[in-house]
Amino acid sequence: MKAEIISIGTELLLGHTINTDAAFTARELAALGIDLLWVSTVGDNRIRVRQTVTTALERSDVVITTGGLGPTGDDLTKESVAEAAGVPLELHEESLHRLEQHFAGRVMDDNQRKQAMLPQGCSVFVNNAGTAPGCGFRTASGRIVIMLPGPPSELMPMLKESAVPFLRSFSDGAAILSTMIRVFGMGEGRAAEHLADLTDGVNPTVATYASEGEMFVRVTAKAADEQAARALCAPVTAEIQRRLGDVIYGIDADNLESVVVKGLSLRKLRLATAESCTGGLLGKRLTDVAGASEVFASGVITYSNEAKTRLLGVPADLIRTHGAVSLPVARAMARGARLRDDADIGIGITGVAGPGGGTKEKPVGLVHIALDTANETWVRTLHPLFGLIDNRSRIRTRAASTALDMVRRLLAGLPPDGGKHVSEIP
Amino acid sequence: MKAEIISIGTELLLGHTINTDAAFTARELAALGIDLLWVSTVGDNRIRVRQTVTTALERSDVVITTGGLGPTGDDLTKESVAEAAGVPLELHEESLHRLEQHFAGRVMDDNQRKQAMLPQGCSVFVNNAGTAPGCGFRTASGRIVIMLPGPPSELMPMLKESAVPFLRSFSDGAAILSTMIRVFGMGEGRAAEHLADLTDGVNPTVATYASEGEMFVRVTAKAADEQAARALCAPVTAEIQRRLGDVIYGIDADNLESVVVKGLSLRKLRLATAESCTGGLLGKRLTDVAGASEVFASGVITYSNEAKTRLLGVPADLIRTHGAVSLPVARAMARGARLRDDADIGIGITGVAGPGGGTKEKPVGLVHIALDTANETWVRTLHPLFGLIDNRSRIRTRAASTALDMVRRLLAGLPPDGGKHVSEIP
Repeated sequence: MKAEIISIGTELLLGHTINTDAAFTARELAALGIDLLWVSTVGDNRIRVRQTVTTALERSDVVITTGGLGPTGDDLTKESVAEAAGVPLELHEESLHRLEQHFAGRVMDDNQRKQAMLPQGCSVFVNNAGTAPGCGFRTASGRIVIMLPGPPSELMPMLKESAVPFLRSFSDGAAILSTMIRVFGMGEGRAAEHLADLTDGVNPTVATYASEGEMFVRVTAKAADEQAARALCAPVTAEIQRRLGDVIYGIDADNLESVVVKGLSLRKLRLATAESCTGGLLGKRLTDVAGASEVFASGVITYSNEAKTRLLGVPADLIRTHGAVSLPVARAMARGARLRDDADIGIGITGVAGPGGGTKEKPVGLVHIALDTANETWVRTLHPLFGLIDNRSRIRTRAASTALDMVRRLLAGLPPDGGKHVSEIP
Repeated sequence: MKAEIISIGTELLLGHTINTDAAFTARELAALGIDLLWVSTVGDNRIRVRQTVTTALERSDVVITTGGLGPTGDDLTKESVAEAAGVPLELHEESLHRLEQHFAGRVMDDNQRKQAMLPQGCSVFVNNAGTAPGCGFRTASGRIVIMLPGPPSELMPMLKESAVPFLRSFSDGAAILSTMIRVFGMGEGRAAEHLADLTDGVNPTVATYASEGEMFVRVTAKAADEQAARALCAPVTAEIQRRLGDVIYGIDADNLESVVVKGLSLRKLRLATAESCTGGLLGKRLTDVAGASEVFASGVITYSNEAKTRLLGVPADLIRTHGAVSLPVARAMARGARLRDDADIGIGITGVAGPGGGTKEKPVGLVHIALDTANETWVRTLHPLFGLIDNRSRIRTRAASTALDMVRRLLAGLPPDGGKHVSEIP
């Protein structure tokens, strides 16, 4: 099946909004084994939307629109698609009822009501994160049309919960199964070298990609049923695990933070954090995971030297001698966090996130991370990435991810620092 | 002039890469007063690239391609564009010379050499950040064609330094100017009601949209020059400010956190935070802003009751009597954070982020936020959004944004709680 995405919204053409919806939808289509051949972006203009949908219906089996389902006058996707596909819109009572519940006690105007007008005979996709429902239907000529809302927080769950099952019901009966191998601590280039022969395969296919400082390897097999697809994936997945080794932090796992929270929870261990340059990002990521309260009792964000001393007991002398961004201070922060909370594991992060504050000795991008337990302290130091223009956000994300990976490695019985143990605390 | 961007690269269709090039190029076109009507994304497929370029040359005055100029076999933009535009490629000696210099001492194969093949008679755009040059030319039928490399680090400087001056030489001199009005605390629907007559306007146009719990109103004008466009925007922007009032937190400002950090910095005020359900998100957002260290000395993340007492001095009795998620505890957290850090402003956040932990009295989505100063304490309580299934991420984002908005309001001389003052601390 050939697919096309039509992203609708003038904000995309003015460059105010980056089209993340298309990338997210593209990944789901790839996982379904549907070939995405075009993404077309068009503004909130009825004639151009209709023309674009008409062209798409001529050349693609699946046409997915994103955006333009809301209550404002600019939102004209459904009208334009209905015209292009030759399907009338009609009031969907259940959606109207949901809208009325949402607006209980407040005035709901015609524009709001318009959101409940949907193509005749379509499957309605409930929007649990907003007001505008989405939908899917088949045209007289057999094309599959799906309309999804524009805000990513609405599109993402609707895509997973409604659009993907809807698409799957039209698939040729073959099962497509993807296994996602998640890697931290090895770049895409090096992984691709290790896996070069595997990425030439056809069934399963093996593809690598990088995102937010992490790397992923996706193994996708197509077979008559799920069991057969799984059987095709399994040996290749095992071979990738053998080749990449302990930089793999999860198979089909959510992300580093959920692996860490689950691991701590399973072992009934408690973590305490002390963050300087990451400013709460590590705590934020840990508590993104539901249930983090069981394993994460407290964290402190200590930007100033005084706060490091007051909240963590880092000796003022130590900061004077080595500077706030130093290995000894990272260690003392980790130990302070652990001891003061009577936790099992303490994390300390101190570094220069930039853009200001860098020196020749301590450049922007230098970050020290310590992991402290009752038995031992491990440290890792991140250096500026050579030849790349680094930025604050990347430096902070890399630091928080490295801290999470150190905990992950500890829980897996691996040296958190990748091998080099540091036992002494000054 | 009508323009179209064609983004070329299979990685875009697999969702591995988000199309930031298109957004960046779109902004430059808007600033030049060129109407971008379409963005088309297509994979590394010679037939489909040629078809897409052919369609674009029929309907657009300016066609800009991004990607596919490099040395690999997948890079076939120039061949496809040359075919569609009916212009032969020829060796550009100067570009070959630059490549040879770049490869000095290393083997340069035919694929590398291919990068110096450019459309006959084009203006060559030197690539100072990579190997593949870009170019611009005019077709026999008068269309303007521009080809730019895909990596953002190469595209961005080439666009600014070469493509924009090239385009300007053809432009009709019109300028487009956009003003972005940023709103927190009013939904898109209600704002659209207030602005209904303005959104019908043609020059300037007024459009509303929502993202991540915030709302934006964009005013866009087109005129002979920038000054005239600004003069068209100004009265409409002023009228929107008059109608929406103090929910507007910035005009062309970055975001809530940068407004807050700048405001605190200007007044030399220091902020201390105490976060429970947001788990560090508020600290993370504050420290996303470079220079936050001047105004944000410390934060504590206190999930457990014990940590609230130990790190913030919240009386254990108070927690026993009212529960951890309660107004008195939020107030005591804010005050504890402020006093213990000797800060000017303290923020306390406590709530139920879910998905577990909710009760009938204290449902998922209930969050209390307190702002404490030496003179007064203000509180705001967020309730679950009726009719929407809330989620952890949205609840946390809304809580952190509300806390930032309370600080923003305080700094602007507005009551942080929207009017209801609460002075007593239990």
